[in-house]
Amino acid sequence: MRYFAVVGRALGAFFTAFLLGVSLLPPFLRLLRRCHVEQSFRAREEVRGLADLHALKAHTPTMGGVCIWLATVLATLAWGKLNSLTLSALFVFSAFGAIGLADDLYKFFRHSSKGLSGRKKLLLEAVILIALLAGLRRWDLGLYRALHELWIPLSVTPLFCHIPTILAFAFAFLVISGSGNAVNLTDGVDGLAAGCSITTCCALTAVCLSVDRGGSPAVSGAAELAVLLMSLAGALLAFLWYNCQPARIFMGDGGSLAIGGLLGSAAFLIRQPFLLAVLGGVFVLEALSVLAQVYYFRWTGGRRIFRMAPLHHHFELGGWPESLVVGRFWIASLLFCAAGLALHFLPRL
Amino acid sequence: MRYFAVVGRALGAFFTAFLLGVSLLPPFLRLLRRCHVEQSFRAREEVRGLADLHALKAHTPTMGGVCIWLATVLATLAWGKLNSLTLSALFVFSAFGAIGLADDLYKFFRHSSKGLSGRKKLLLEAVILIALLAGLRRWDLGLYRALHELWIPLSVTPLFCHIPTILAFAFAFLVISGSGNAVNLTDGVDGLAAGCSITTCCALTAVCLSVDRGGSPAVSGAAELAVLLMSLAGALLAFLWYNCQPARIFMGDGGSLAIGGLLGSAAFLIRQPFLLAVLGGVFVLEALSVLAQVYYFRWTGGRRIFRMAPLHHHFELGGWPESLVVGRFWIASLLFCAAGLALHFLPRL
Repeated sequence: MRYFAVVGRALGAFFTAFLLGVSLLPPFLRLLRRCHVEQSFRAREEVRGLADLHALKAHTPTMGGVCIWLATVLATLAWGKLNSLTLSALFVFSAFGAIGLADDLYKFFRHSSKGLSGRKKLLLEAVILIALLAGLRRWDLGLYRALHELWIPLSVTPLFCHIPTILAFAFAFLVISGSGNAVNLTDGVDGLAAGCSITTCCALTAVCLSVDRGGSPAVSGAAELAVLLMSLAGALLAFLWYNCQPARIFMGDGGSLAIGGLLGSAAFLIRQPFLLAVLGGVFVLEALSVLAQVYYFRWTGGRRIFRMAPLHHHFELGGWPESLVVGRFWIASLLFCAAGLALHFLPRL
Repeated sequence: MRYFAVVGRALGAFFTAFLLGVSLLPPFLRLLRRCHVEQSFRAREEVRGLADLHALKAHTPTMGGVCIWLATVLATLAWGKLNSLTLSALFVFSAFGAIGLADDLYKFFRHSSKGLSGRKKLLLEAVILIALLAGLRRWDLGLYRALHELWIPLSVTPLFCHIPTILAFAFAFLVISGSGNAVNLTDGVDGLAAGCSITTCCALTAVCLSVDRGGSPAVSGAAELAVLLMSLAGALLAFLWYNCQPARIFMGDGGSLAIGGLLGSAAFLIRQPFLLAVLGGVFVLEALSVLAQVYYFRWTGGRRIFRMAPLHHHFELGGWPESLVVGRFWIASLLFCAAGLALHFLPRL
C-alpha cells in the first residue's frame, strides 16, 4: 500500500511539475526577452561550419533552467516526503544549478561565450560534494557508511567492496560531477539534453522504486527519490514544449548542470552509478567523445577523430539536419534505457 | 516466474524487432528508390498552402510499412507463444496491413493520390472483423463470449453489460476500424504516427501485463500480447530512425492501418477500448478533428473550424514548423499515456 501510494504521488508530481512548467515558462520567456538575456555563441573562427548551421539560434533567450528548477522543487515539496536521500539530491540539484546559473550570468554580464573557467567549476563542484558527504556523516550515518561500500554488479553474485572515505569522495566526484558535465556537454542542439534526460529520469524512477522494495543493495526510502525524479521529468517535458526544434528558449548551464547533478546524485545515493552509465548512455558517449577528441588532438599534435566534439556536432557537420540528429539521439537514449532496465530487472526475476 | 519470463521475452522481442528493422530498411529503401515507389500527394488546388510547406517531401519512397510488418511478425514468432489473443491480433494486423498495402499499390500503379475509396476500405475492414468474430466463435468460445460482456469503467465498481452479437460486432468495428483509420489520418507529417504509436504501444504493454495477473476484467494470456506489442514498438523505433524529420521513407497506408488495427484489436481483446481512447488520445483528437471539420463544413455550407484537418495540418498552416508540430504532439502523446496509466493502475493499488 505504502509502495503504491508512492507511485501515485510520483505521477501527481509529474503532472504538477508539467503544469507549473508550462505556466511559468511563457511569462519568464517574456521577461528574458525584455532583458535581452540571450545565449552567447562561440566566435565563428572557433566553431567553423557550425556557425552557419546555427545562425538562426542567435537571439534565443537562455536560462530556462531556472523554470525547470522551480517547477521541480515546488512539485517535489507538494507531493514528496523529505528524507535524507531526497534532501541530498535536492541539495546537489540546487547547488549545481547555482554554479551553472553563475556561469550563465557571468557570460551575460560580460557579453562573452566564456564563462567561469572549467577548473573553477570543477573546484566548486568538489566543495559541494565534500559538503554533501560531511552533511550525511553528521545527519545520516547509516547512509554515509553505506556509501563506503562500493557495489559492483560485474559478477553473478554482486561484489561489495569497502573503500576509504577519500575514495568514496573521489567516486562521488566522478559520478555526480561527471554526470553534471556530461549533460552540460550534451546540451548543444535543440531538445537533445531535455529529451535524453526525460528517458533517463523515467528509467531511473523505475530503478528507485525497485530498490526500495529490496534487492541488492536495498535502499530504504529510495522510492521518495522517484517523486523527485518524476517532478524533474514533468518539468523537462514542459521545457521541451518550448525547446523543441526550433527552440524558443535554452536551458543554459544552470539547467544542464543541475539536471546532470540530480541524475548523478540519485544514482550515487542508491548505489547504482554503473547502471546510470547505461541508462544515460548518450551522455556518456557525448562526454567520451570530447575527452577522446581533446586527448587525441594533443597526442597527435593537431589531428581530430571527430569533425567536431561533442558527438552531436560531428553528425551535424556530416550533413544530418538538426532534427535528425536529435531524433536519432533520442532513439539511442530510449534503447540505452531499455537495455539498462533489462540489465537491472531481468536478473531479479 | 512465468510472468517475469514474459517481461524478458517482451524485451527480447523489442530488441530483435529493432535490429531486424534497421537491417531490413536500408536495402528495402534502395529497392523502393530503384522502382520509383514514391508517395503521391494531393494536387496543389486541394491542399493549398500545404503544398509549399511539403514541397521537399516529393520523391520520398513510401510503403515502409512492409518492413514494420515483417520485423514485428518475425520478432513475435521468435519470442512469443501464440494463443488465441495473439493470433487474433496478428490476423487483424496483417489483414489491415494488406488493405493498406493494396491502397498504396493502387495509388502507385495509377500514379494518383486517390486510392481505394473510403467506403470500399471500410467494407473490407468490416469483412475482416466478421471473420475475426466467426473465427473466435469456432476456436475460442470463452473469449468470444467474453467479448459480449461490455466492460464500462465509468463507475467505482465497473459496470458489466451483456450485449448481443450484432452490437459486439458494431463495437469491434468502432474500436478496431476506428483505431486503424485514426492512425492512418495521423500519419501526415514526418515521424508523427510512428512516435505516437510507440508511446501507445509501450503503455498498452504495461496494461496487458497487468490484466494477465488479474484485475477487472482479468484476461488470462494477455501477457503474450505484450510480446507482440513490444515487437511493434521495436520495429517502429527502427522505422523512426529513417522516418525522423526529414523523412527518408514513409510508412504508407499499409503501415498506419496495420498499426492502428493492432492497437485497436489488442485493446478490444483485453476489453480495454475505453482506456485505449485515453492512451491514444492524439489519434482520437486527430480523427475527431477530421469529423468535426467535414460535418461543420457540410452543415454551414462551406465554413471551416480548422485551417485544415487533420489537426497537425491546422498547426502547420498556423506557422508551427513541422519539427515543432511533431515534437509537441509527441509530448501530448506521452501525457495521454501517463494519464491513461494513472487511470488504469492507481485504482487497483
